[in-house]
Amino acid sequence: MDVKAAVAYAAGEPLSIETIQLEGPKEGEVLVEIKATGVCHTDAYTLSGKDPEGLFPTILGHEGAGIVVEVGEGVKSVKPGDHVIPLYTPECRQCKFCLSQKTNLCQAIRATQGKGLMPDGTSRFSVNGKPLYHYMGTSTFANYTVLPEIAVAKIREDAPFDKVCYIGCGVTTGIGAVIFTAKVEPGAKVVVFGLGGIGLNVIQGCRMVGADRIVGVDLNPSKRSIAEQFGMTHFVNPKEIRGDLVAHLIELTDGGADYSFECIGNVQVMRQALECCHKGWGVCTIIGVAGAGEEISTRPFQLVTGRVWKGSAFGGARGRTDVPKIVDWYMDHKINIDDLITHTLPLNQINDAFDLMHHGESIRSVVLFD
Amino acid sequence: MDVKAAVAYAAGEPLSIETIQLEGPKEGEVLVEIKATGVCHTDAYTLSGKDPEGLFPTILGHEGAGIVVEVGEGVKSVKPGDHVIPLYTPECRQCKFCLSQKTNLCQAIRATQGKGLMPDGTSRFSVNGKPLYHYMGTSTFANYTVLPEIAVAKIREDAPFDKVCYIGCGVTTGIGAVIFTAKVEPGAKVVVFGLGGIGLNVIQGCRMVGADRIVGVDLNPSKRSIAEQFGMTHFVNPKEIRGDLVAHLIELTDGGADYSFECIGNVQVMRQALECCHKGWGVCTIIGVAGAGEEISTRPFQLVTGRVWKGSAFGGARGRTDVPKIVDWYMDHKINIDDLITHTLPLNQINDAFDLMHHGESIRSVVLFD
Repeated sequence: MDVKAAVAYAAGEPLSIETIQLEGPKEGEVLVEIKATGVCHTDAYTLSGKDPEGLFPTILGHEGAGIVVEVGEGVKSVKPGDHVIPLYTPECRQCKFCLSQKTNLCQAIRATQGKGLMPDGTSRFSVNGKPLYHYMGTSTFANYTVLPEIAVAKIREDAPFDKVCYIGCGVTTGIGAVIFTAKVEPGAKVVVFGLGGIGLNVIQGCRMVGADRIVGVDLNPSKRSIAEQFGMTHFVNPKEIRGDLVAHLIELTDGGADYSFECIGNVQVMRQALECCHKGWGVCTIIGVAGAGEEISTRPFQLVTGRVWKGSAFGGARGRTDVPKIVDWYMDHKINIDDLITHTLPLNQINDAFDLMHHGESIRSVVLFD
Repeated sequence: MDVKAAVAYAAGEPLSIETIQLEGPKEGEVLVEIKATGVCHTDAYTLSGKDPEGLFPTILGHEGAGIVVEVGEGVKSVKPGDHVIPLYTPECRQCKFCLSQKTNLCQAIRATQGKGLMPDGTSRFSVNGKPLYHYMGTSTFANYTVLPEIAVAKIREDAPFDKVCYIGCGVTTGIGAVIFTAKVEPGAKVVVFGLGGIGLNVIQGCRMVGADRIVGVDLNPSKRSIAEQFGMTHFVNPKEIRGDLVAHLIELTDGGADYSFECIGNVQVMRQALECCHKGWGVCTIIGVAGAGEEISTRPFQLVTGRVWKGSAFGGARGRTDVPKIVDWYMDHKINIDDLITHTLPLNQINDAFDLMHHGESIRSVVLFD
């Protein structure tokens, strides 16, 4: 079938809006009409050419929402008409990882997904007979895409696509890290490094679970207002701190953070995030993605005296199980997504969404199809 | 009163066996007759002069067992005749740390303990009117010592002093790290780095809780036999591995360790211990104490993909609550202490115990009083 898509032909080049070909779903796959998709830093990272695993030509996009149009043989968990969010972290409920009940990192289709292919080792997308790579198993920068059944989360039908698409990545990454990875509890004192989209979602996750003190750290004072709206109780600009930032944060949290979150991807900040944690129990969760080859360091004394260093991918959320819950939380007004979506654009302006991001002018831009 | 003690007058010098003076217990303190004490690497570390917090002259020793002889005003939890193990990590049950229920690192008397003094800021030990420093709040290298009430664990009276004194440090540090810090569960696959006394106690802790595979790693093949006796199922000598040790350990554990333990204090090994953990859930617990200023490093990707880096001090055990349980486990033959105590010496041969340790000829030497 013909689909309208933004094709990434090569690193560093603008996306090309055109009509391409999509094969229908094979066994265990579903065809989804994408109604809306967010544009995320990870798409920009791959498009920039810095992602060592980036493959071209490809259809980027991994933060979508849409409607199942057709299902392949053997598909039982969804049917045409179901509303879904594509999952770049699938949930097969069969592999060692899913069955461990200790991680959300389902490995069922990891090998082919990493190669830009569907589980059978082929692509469904093509231009003039030449295949295009899938991206993160989702490729939501097209008005139709094909996904493995285990890579779609069925959601309620009254949820607006142009908002809940953000749950496909950013919202879940932030809120999930609070709830599923760190397991922040009521009364906790928290420090959040980086007040971009992820940091704001961490902040509202902490507010939702009843944290007492939510300290936000960012070099950019213009982030303060929106962060306060989302629940930040104290703002720290490292440029304005005389002396040691870590000591200042420990003082602000009466002895250290019960939980800290690194939402930037800066290895020096990851160290500060660990070391501002409370002796005896403080847990530092790394969410940000560092550059290839970069390393984190600390004195082991930090760990022996009770701090814990961990990380979170897709918020520790199991896609098919937890994503529908987060949609409910949005619909129940427990979390705010609307104010994070600063721009909504049609597909033919998708390159503008990347520009807005690069210029720091958006929190999240959403592309609408139709 | 006169007591018989091994005095450390200065770093690097042998201990001097002599009669010194001990003041009786003040309010909230207890006088304990020490019946037996282990000689631990930490005593040797401080005696060597490498411990930046070491104070001289002092009475070393922190792994004792004995009988309460007299109690100061206000002491309610123990009485003369009670058998006790001194605790270098006390448990006040009142401070923020104890009340958190998340850590064993009671801070009630930390400031004075670190200065070699009792909580009132003075010492009970003296020679010819000149005070000696206490050590780790315990000073068990004397046949009598004074301890804060919160720094003694009351234990059953049928437990032999010359064995359960080892629970005052090494046994609890190893077994506790398994049970209280890492919380190893039945069926787990475990890798233990370093097969000294701590490593052997980690191994028997893992066996006790039902771990399936217990891999021991040590450069010294002579450790293999005793480690197997304590529950090790696979031995790895890094010198005999061609290629990458971490890759080998991941293969031996079918994808990585569910739990790993560093029992050496080597920062390079701490990295291997993290990186041999299973993606998604592997937990690395650092027990070994690194040299001052040394740092650990890794790529944050290790954490973001689900591995956890933590540490353990005194096995995460709450002294007054958990130490009596470990004594019960010994008396019930759930754990073996007898075969770890390779030498038993009278006080006047205590310097021989240090020599045996330095030459790698002992697992644990115990000094008996009387």
